Amino acid sequence: MTEIIKMYGLEFVVRDYECDLQGIVNNANYQHYLEHARHEFLISKGISFVDLHNEGLDLIVTKVEIDYKHPLKSRDKFIVRLTIQREGNVRLVFFQDIYRLPDEKHIVHAKVTGVATKKGRPVSPGDLVNRLNLE
Amino acid sequence: MTEIIKMYGLEFVVRDYECDLQGIVNNANYQHYLEHARHEFLISKGISFVDLHNEGLDLIVTKVEIDYKHPLKSRDKFIVRLTIQREGNVRLVFFQDIYRLPDEKHIVHAKVTGVATKKGRPVSPGDLVNRLNLE
Amino acid sequence: MTEIIKMYGLEFVVRDYECDLQGIVNNANYQHYLEHARHEFLISKGISFVDLHNEGLDLIVTKVEIDYKHPLKSRDKFIVRLTIQREGNVRLVFFQDIYRLPDEKHIVHAKVTGVATKKGRPVSPGDLVNRLNLE
Amino acid sequence: MTEIIKMYGLEFVVRDYECDLQGIVNNANYQHYLEHARHEFLISKGISFVDLHNEGLDLIVTKVEIDYKHPLKSRDKFIVRLTIQREGNVRLVFFQDIYRLPDEKHIVHAKVTGVATKKGRPVSPGDLVNRLNLE
Repeated sequence: MTEIIKMYGLEFVVRDYECDLQGIVNNANYQHYLEHARHEFLISKGISFVDLHNEGLDLIVTKVEIDYKHPLKSRDKFIVRLTIQREGNVRLVFFQDIYRLPDEKHIVHAKVTGVATKKGRPVSPGDLVNRLNLE
Repeated sequence: MTEIIKMYGLEFVVRDYECDLQGIVNNANYQHYLEHARHEFLISKGISFVDLHNEGLDLIVTKVEIDYKHPLKSRDKFIVRLTIQREGNVRLVFFQDIYRLPDEKHIVHAKVTGVATKKGRPVSPGDLVNRLNLE
Repeated sequence: MTEIIKMYGLEFVVRDYECDLQGIVNNANYQHYLEHARHEFLISKGISFVDLHNEGLDLIVTKVEIDYKHPLKSRDKFIVRLTIQREGNVRLVFFQDIYRLPDEKHIVHAKVTGVATKKGRPVSPGDLVNRLNLE
Repeated sequence: MTEIIKMYGLEFVVRDYECDLQGIVNNANYQHYLEHARHEFLISKGISFVDLHNEGLDLIVTKVEIDYKHPLKSRDKFIVRLTIQREGNVRLVFFQDIYRLPDEKHIVHAKVTGVATKKGRPVSPGDLVNRLNLE
């Protein structure tokens, strides 16, 4: 139930509009990077966030914990790596790390907890988990 | 068909995250201000952008022209004023101006053209126009 | 050192562009709301985030923990309330809660940890703390 | 003075957070795409938007005209192509087009006018123009 699998990485480059008046990436934008990496990971497993939504199944984030270790600046290259873990009956936990490239400086560590919901109520993510090969 | 009615103003304050590394509001965020003012204007006329979408009627922007006259900075107060005009059979045109407060410095002038669509095809905005008292 | 003072609230309304294709506010935007409330709180105490940056003192968020309890939808009104606490020698902790208005539905609980830095190094937030009356 | 040179293209993929509750990319985000393409183009010519800002030279957009021809949806791939033209003594004009990939559907046509400024005043973009080989 708690296996962790190293499985996915997605590369980005900082866009200038993502930086704020401190000259560094605004904190909220890291959540965008993390979300995009999760959705692209799901797509790589044949799971479309949008198609699921249109079928009535929404993946909802219930908790986010982000450690900001070092800021990214304009045009920095970086990679978002993630692993995934099942927690209890309904929760999926993503562990996500951002590293600057090419020096692998550790930028962000995040734990993102989500549940699958139908009509606003949590449901077992059984089918999803099968597709993710978590069991 | 071309009457212009002075009709609406909405006040804002610049939020720090809307500024970029030049220390001024990022250009794209003015479109957010303009959009929010249009939607609040429609609400003030009893027209919900979201309800319309859920009924299958989407208001789509087809053209935006924005003159940037002077930048806004962190925590500036400003007002978005708008008038609306019908153009031809299917187009509605919003003229929108942003003025800094309290000195009424002219920040942005914009012309935003939109159409009403159902299933991606333009339809007459007749009912909308009636509610907007444009005729 | 650990006193908590109930001290600040700021009201918002959801803007349509802050919602994503699930029809609810995108997770990252709650961080924008929380940041804007913190900065307005500091301003209410005579402390300008931007002026501090221009003086070489940057307030940096080092950790964010957000519990998403219930989503906000288009045009929901809400309030961000915050308290602040000193932790150790260099950390300031903001506890922030978002409640929908007028029904006071609990939307988000967040703990945001920050430090003051000069040239990228943490410094004692002594002067800030004095101005915030935390001691 | 008015030569147009076909010179640059940059590929993107739509990220889910860029879509709004209509399920399509929010209008303001196209300005982000256009800006990022312009900045990456300048970088490809050895011109850093951020370095220029730090040297006191800011490139400022004075006018944006965008025709929205067809919306982009979640995960669409697209390319932003641009040409550049000098207009009068101080203005640079970017013509930018967005095409969906791989079908080359025309999504957006934009004309973006900018000036170089020092301390808020327009200056001749002579050195920039030399580096861009516009003469």
